[in-house]
Amino acid sequence: MRTTVGIIGAGPAGLLLARLLHNAGIESVVLEGRDRAYVEQRQRAGILEQGTVDVLREAGVGARMDREGLPHDGIELRFDRRRHRVDFPALTGGKQVMVYAQTEVCKDLIAAQLADGGPLLFEAEALAVEGADTAGPRIRFRHEGREQTLDCDYVVGCDGFWGVARKAVPEELVRTYERTYPYAWLGILADVAPSHDELIYNRSDRGFALMSMRSPHVTRAYLQVPAGTEAESWSDDEIWAELDRRLEVDDPTWRLARGPITSKSVTPMRSYVHEPMRHGRLFLAGDAAHIVPPTGAKGLNLAVGDVITFARALTAYVEKGDTEALDTYSETCLRRVWQAERFSYAMTTMLHRAPDATAFDDKIQLAQLDRVTTSKAAETDLAEAYTGFPV
Amino acid sequence: MRTTVGIIGAGPAGLLLARLLHNAGIESVVLEGRDRAYVEQRQRAGILEQGTVDVLREAGVGARMDREGLPHDGIELRFDRRRHRVDFPALTGGKQVMVYAQTEVCKDLIAAQLADGGPLLFEAEALAVEGADTAGPRIRFRHEGREQTLDCDYVVGCDGFWGVARKAVPEELVRTYERTYPYAWLGILADVAPSHDELIYNRSDRGFALMSMRSPHVTRAYLQVPAGTEAESWSDDEIWAELDRRLEVDDPTWRLARGPITSKSVTPMRSYVHEPMRHGRLFLAGDAAHIVPPTGAKGLNLAVGDVITFARALTAYVEKGDTEALDTYSETCLRRVWQAERFSYAMTTMLHRAPDATAFDDKIQLAQLDRVTTSKAAETDLAEAYTGFPV
Repeated sequence: MRTTVGIIGAGPAGLLLARLLHNAGIESVVLEGRDRAYVEQRQRAGILEQGTVDVLREAGVGARMDREGLPHDGIELRFDRRRHRVDFPALTGGKQVMVYAQTEVCKDLIAAQLADGGPLLFEAEALAVEGADTAGPRIRFRHEGREQTLDCDYVVGCDGFWGVARKAVPEELVRTYERTYPYAWLGILADVAPSHDELIYNRSDRGFALMSMRSPHVTRAYLQVPAGTEAESWSDDEIWAELDRRLEVDDPTWRLARGPITSKSVTPMRSYVHEPMRHGRLFLAGDAAHIVPPTGAKGLNLAVGDVITFARALTAYVEKGDTEALDTYSETCLRRVWQAERFSYAMTTMLHRAPDATAFDDKIQLAQLDRVTTSKAAETDLAEAYTGFPV
Repeated sequence: MRTTVGIIGAGPAGLLLARLLHNAGIESVVLEGRDRAYVEQRQRAGILEQGTVDVLREAGVGARMDREGLPHDGIELRFDRRRHRVDFPALTGGKQVMVYAQTEVCKDLIAAQLADGGPLLFEAEALAVEGADTAGPRIRFRHEGREQTLDCDYVVGCDGFWGVARKAVPEELVRTYERTYPYAWLGILADVAPSHDELIYNRSDRGFALMSMRSPHVTRAYLQVPAGTEAESWSDDEIWAELDRRLEVDDPTWRLARGPITSKSVTPMRSYVHEPMRHGRLFLAGDAAHIVPPTGAKGLNLAVGDVITFARALTAYVEKGDTEALDTYSETCLRRVWQAERFSYAMTTMLHRAPDATAFDDKIQLAQLDRVTTSKAAETDLAEAYTGFPV
C-alpha cells in the first residue's frame, strides 16, 4: 500500500489534515487504532478558536457546526465574589470562539472523508514509523489481523501523547520540556441547561471551577481536585455542593442549575513539548508533540494550527517546488506552541490553588485578576490569546 | 513637644510627607535616627515614575531634578541575544520616567525642609509609638542623650522595614504576606559613562543583569547572584566579565563600557506586605508596610504614593471635616501596593533564573518575553505598570 501522506491517528488533527490535503488534491491515508464508535464518542475539548472555526468552514465541514455550535463573544472571570465579563469582539476587533465539541468535529470530518476522501482505516494500529529520514518513510501497522506497510512520501504523526510516531525521532536529536501540576480536573456532563450563557472561569480559595456547556441543554463543569483523584470518589451531590461553594458571588441573580450527571472523569494536568516537531519526512502534530493543561482551551486549537501549517507547506512544495515551509515546519509551529504553552500555564497558575500556596500567592492571584479586569491592555492580552494566536 | 503629624523616618517618604503637609499648612515634626550625612549618602533606588516626578515638581522640590535628572522614554528588554525597546510615551499616552537617585531626592527635600519647614531632627531615634488607637498618639524617642515624647494628632511611620512604627499595631489585627527569593542583586557604581542611554533589563541563562546609570558619567549595574553572596567575593574583573557574558547580543554596535568600580553592595530580594496600613491614628507608609524586589523600580514610588494618599486624606479632613479618606487609607493604598507587588513579582520571575529552574521554566520565560515584545497589548500592560499606577 502506498500514498503521498500517511497520517497516523484519526483525532481532529489527523482527520482535518486528510480533509485539507484532499481539498488541495493531495492523496493521503489515515490509520486509526480504535474503532469509529470510540473516536466519535470520546469526550475531549469543546472550544474552537476563531481560526479553527474559519478553517473548518473553508474546508467545507462547517455546516453543522454553524447550525448547532454556540458562538461565544466572551467569558466570565469570577473571583473574590465578583463577576467580570471579558468581551472578545470588542477587545480583538471582532473575534469570537465557538462551543462545539471535539467529538462533533470528528464526526463531521469522518463523514466527509468517508464520502469523498482517501482511505480512513479504523482498527488499524500503527506499530512504528521507519525510514523517517529517507526519501521513502513507511508506517508499519496491524489491520484485520495482519501486519502491513504503508509506503509514503511523508508521514504525519497525529497519534497523541502515547503514540508511536514520536519514537521515530532519534533520541539524541530530541529535547523535551515538561511540567506536571499537583492538581487535576474532575469533569462532569449533566442533563441540565447551562447556568450561564458563557463560560465562567472561577478562582476561589477552595480551588478552581469552570462552568461550561456542550449544548443549550447539557452542562459541562469542572472542579480542581488533587492529582490522582478517582472520579467515582465524588458523589453527584458532593460535586454540585462544591460547585455551589466555589462559585459563590455577590449577585443575587446567580443560581447554579443542577441536573442528572451523565458522565464523570478526571483529566490530569500536564505541560509538555517535544522538540523538534519534524525529523526528515516525519512531521508531528497536536498532542504527539505537545500537551497543554486544559485551562484556556488551547489543545485542540494548537493541533489545528499544526496541520494547517503542514498542509500549507506541502501545498507550496507541490504547487511551486518550494521546500522552505516544509523545512521550517518545526520552528514555525513551535513559536505558536510556546505562546500557547505560556498562556495555558499563566491561566492555570492564575486560577488554580496549589496545595502549598501561601497567603502571598493567593494575593498575587487576586492582584493578577484585578489587573486583567481593570486594565484594557491586560484584558486585551488575555482576549487575544484566548481567541487564538495567528497561524 | 507636640505637633499635628509626627513623622518617623527621614527617607524619601517621611521627607516628602513633611513637605506636602507644610505646603498644605499642616504642622509636622520629622524624627530620624541616623545623622544627616548618612541619609544623604545611602544608595538606594534611582528611577522615579511619572507621578513621582509630578508630585516633586508640584511640591516645589523639582528644580534640581529637572536640571540634573535624566528623563527616559523607554527601557530595553534583552534576551536570547535580541534587543527590544519598550517605548513608554507611545504606549502610555506620553508618560516617562526619570533617572534621579533617591539620595538626591532626599538632599533636595532636606534642604527645603530646613529652609522653611517644620522641625527635622536627626539622630532622634524613635523607640515606640504609644496610644495609636487613642485621640492622642505619642512617639517616644531618644535625642541628645535623653528620652523625650512627641505628642501628635497623627503618627505616620515612614521608618522602613526594621522600624518601630509597625510594632504598635496589635498582633491580632495584623496579617503579613511574604516571599523571599533564592537570589540577590550584586550592585556596582562605576566611574564610566553608561554603555546605553536607557536601562537594559537582561535575561540570560546565566541569570539576570541590569544596566542602569546614576548620571551621564556614572554607571549603575546589577548582577543576579545567589542569596547570601558577599559583595567582596566578586572581583572587579569578574563583575565586568560576567556582565559582558550575560549581555551578549547579536548586535555588533553593542559594547560594554568598563571603568573603575567605586562601590559594591548586595541587595536581598523580598516581597512583603503588612496589613492593615492604618491602626487608629497611626499610618504606615513605604517600606514600613511593604517591600518589593527591586526589579521594576517600584519601592520608592510606592512610598511616594502612600504619603500622597495620606496628605490628601488629612487635607480633606482639615479643610472639609471629611474623614472618609483617612478611614479608608489602608484599603486605598493596598490596592495600589498589591498591583506593584504583582508587577515586581512578575518582572522578577520573568527575568531571573531560579537555581532550580527547569528547561520548561526557561522556555516559559522566553515565551513571555516574546509575547511582551510582539503584542502591543502585552507591551502596553508592562509600560503602564513600569511608568506607574495612578495614585
